[in-house]
Amino acid sequence: MMLSDEAYMEMALKQADLAAEQGEVPVGAVLILPDGQQFVAYNAPIASSDATAHAEIQVIRAACQAISNYRLVGAVLFVTLEPCAMCAGAIIHARIGRVVYGASEPKTGAVESLYQLLSDQRLNHQVNIQGGVLAAQCSAQIKAFFQARR
Amino acid sequence: MMLSDEAYMEMALKQADLAAEQGEVPVGAVLILPDGQQFVAYNAPIASSDATAHAEIQVIRAACQAISNYRLVGAVLFVTLEPCAMCAGAIIHARIGRVVYGASEPKTGAVESLYQLLSDQRLNHQVNIQGGVLAAQCSAQIKAFFQARR
Repeated sequence: MMLSDEAYMEMALKQADLAAEQGEVPVGAVLILPDGQQFVAYNAPIASSDATAHAEIQVIRAACQAISNYRLVGAVLFVTLEPCAMCAGAIIHARIGRVVYGASEPKTGAVESLYQLLSDQRLNHQVNIQGGVLAAQCSAQIKAFFQARR
Repeated sequence: MMLSDEAYMEMALKQADLAAEQGEVPVGAVLILPDGQQFVAYNAPIASSDATAHAEIQVIRAACQAISNYRLVGAVLFVTLEPCAMCAGAIIHARIGRVVYGASEPKTGAVESLYQLLSDQRLNHQVNIQGGVLAAQCSAQIKAFFQARR
């Protein structure tokens, strides 16, 4: 049984807290497979020495490894921040069915802000999108992180 | 000392051959760091059960791990096919300085075809681009792969 979008976003927010504790930009993700399997990850490029280690990429990789499949058909991805172009591209490659995000990212967002990759009809897969879930909390978490570093 | 763009593209083509031998779409990549260190990789999402395992992502990860740094400032990336949005995004995150590619990819290319991510002035890093290097060979390799599978 799926929980509410808000319940999964709370889980993603807890992942983002773990990122912040390590000095990484606090973004967290949760991925649910159609059979109910659940994966979590947080943004960790610095700690893992990996430019690609955004929360979304990490959780997609973890799920792919777990089910030995390079596609995650019908999966739902929850993430605290609007995905960038790299992550939106990965979401399409993985054939994820639905993406739910928290705060919008006007500088790099590639779902609704700068680009609309997940709804581009020229690409071979489109994704159901829901933004703004717990947006105030997600946004406050990132703002607090950057303010503390100044 | 850097070799010519064509010489590195020949190396990338050999990597793409290795992908084809494993039944993966033949795309190969070579990454050169400013100090001369050199990394190679090929497209392997199926074999590695990883939706993100394009040649570019694999070679970026390998270089990041090798130098324990999530950024590859001043690196040059050679790839046989125009990068997609995921890979273009990763190239920006890694702060790669120059991308040289072979064949254009009208369906998914995010450097010059569908999108122009690497030259988007709204993003915080732009990349020097050279397309069309050994384009005929790179294009023929991919076409041969898909014809053989039909």
